[in-house]
Amino acid sequence: MAYRHVALIGLGLIASSIAHAMRRAGMEARITGYARTEATRAEAARLRFAEVMPTAAEAVAGADLVILCTPVGAMGPIAAEIAPHLARGITVSDVGSVKREVIEAVAGRLPADVAFIPAHPVAGTEHSGPGAGFASLFDNRWCLLTPPPGTDPAKLAALRAFWEALGARVDEMDPDHHDLVLAVTSHVPHLIAYTVVGVADDLSRVTASEVVNYSAAGFRDFTRIAASDPTMWRDVFLSNKDATLEILGRFTEELFALQRAIRLGDGPHLHAYFTRTREIRRGIIEAGQDTPAPDFGRAGGAAGE
Amino acid sequence: MAYRHVALIGLGLIASSIAHAMRRAGMEARITGYARTEATRAEAARLRFAEVMPTAAEAVAGADLVILCTPVGAMGPIAAEIAPHLARGITVSDVGSVKREVIEAVAGRLPADVAFIPAHPVAGTEHSGPGAGFASLFDNRWCLLTPPPGTDPAKLAALRAFWEALGARVDEMDPDHHDLVLAVTSHVPHLIAYTVVGVADDLSRVTASEVVNYSAAGFRDFTRIAASDPTMWRDVFLSNKDATLEILGRFTEELFALQRAIRLGDGPHLHAYFTRTREIRRGIIEAGQDTPAPDFGRAGGAAGE
Repeated sequence: MAYRHVALIGLGLIASSIAHAMRRAGMEARITGYARTEATRAEAARLRFAEVMPTAAEAVAGADLVILCTPVGAMGPIAAEIAPHLARGITVSDVGSVKREVIEAVAGRLPADVAFIPAHPVAGTEHSGPGAGFASLFDNRWCLLTPPPGTDPAKLAALRAFWEALGARVDEMDPDHHDLVLAVTSHVPHLIAYTVVGVADDLSRVTASEVVNYSAAGFRDFTRIAASDPTMWRDVFLSNKDATLEILGRFTEELFALQRAIRLGDGPHLHAYFTRTREIRRGIIEAGQDTPAPDFGRAGGAAGE
Repeated sequence: MAYRHVALIGLGLIASSIAHAMRRAGMEARITGYARTEATRAEAARLRFAEVMPTAAEAVAGADLVILCTPVGAMGPIAAEIAPHLARGITVSDVGSVKREVIEAVAGRLPADVAFIPAHPVAGTEHSGPGAGFASLFDNRWCLLTPPPGTDPAKLAALRAFWEALGARVDEMDPDHHDLVLAVTSHVPHLIAYTVVGVADDLSRVTASEVVNYSAAGFRDFTRIAASDPTMWRDVFLSNKDATLEILGRFTEELFALQRAIRLGDGPHLHAYFTRTREIRRGIIEAGQDTPAPDFGRAGGAAGE
């Protein structure tokens, strides 16, 4: 069963990539969309990846799949706003980076005959807005579904097939476990990258141009992550508070142990630690989740060139 | 004045990239080399970017420029070993990521008529060894020289011209300030990346395959940095202890402030912080120190594609 009309609420990086990937996959579904700010709606309309509507109610009218693509903090109010305008028996999904709070904010606000099947495509870039999307964003990336108990198997299968057609690999997960896993692979790394860049920006003894010029030694990778959308990330931390704080606690514990090894001059401890972490990167490359090229290939030269 | 014979002590990523870049620049200088382990010497000999010698003494014999390309902890002993074999009045330099301790370990061990001019090319990748080098590694990257007071201007100019011919931009800096700046742009980011990856590897409630599969949400960038050479990095932290601990202190202070904002639900604080850090990335891209392509271009798609 393919969707005939997909409504995208929120028209940023993920929504525009969904639209581009739907067209690349040859889907003929109608795509309508809505964004809160007029500037975003105007830009999306100009880019023509969706029929942009002046209200969320008009965007969802007649849709058989509605995907919430806003920052997670906006999803509860949006669900309440669109609920009276949804066709009977359709599927509502989302793309939020946090699942437990989204379920609590959204599920209760939708009509009982609508299936809410939360989703999280684990993909993105540091760019945001309607112009940032591209068709291959989800290729070979994972999309995690956290269906509530009792979800209609046919509706679940349809959403899974939709994401697979966009290029993603699909898995199902418990929402609380999702939030813990993503705290490790995404939320805490982002908070730490923001912090590293913030500290560098704030030092009076090192100038901004020194930080900029000598960033190739490692720092510039952090700045990519720390250039991500501030509103999205504020909402992520506020809505995945418990898991973020738990993993942050583990992180500071480990950091203090390494800091102590540096202070005490414990070379063997440092060397053993730095050796172990190489293995994980090998796993990521073997799993097809990153490129083995030096500097992600941006160095402009291959080994032995 | 061009060098006629350059000796590279240590034959890893930086040394092999120097040799490739010298050839690309059309330099006709003889290039000799030495590495401590026989396996590295054999691999370098097979790759033929230098005449590999069985001892450091033989490698430096007759050279008018000797560059120490080993981990910084090995530079003092190497200086003592090569000192009796250096030709009179030549230049010795290095490529270490730390300058104050290298100066203390090396300068006093060299003959008085030899000019020791420390250097640090701020460039690298996560790969190591003789096969990791490539000719464009230094293109548009900065090479920082920390010449001691009274350095012969002609010798300083020659070393500067050498690095410019390899593609680098050259600047001079006080060694202590160098070590502080690099603690910010390189040493602390590396320590933090190692820690983030180490924590993920160590969690019993999140499996290794979950970390690997869902790494595209940010974590995989940290694994690239945390895949860097363990021996090199052990030595960096042990030899730049004070600046590393100072900047780590600033980092944990900031991190605790953000952690507190999350705990208290202080959205405006988080949003303001995350907005400020976007500016630094813009500066890095404008300075030509990184690519503006999403995900460093590895995403395989440009915006709007």
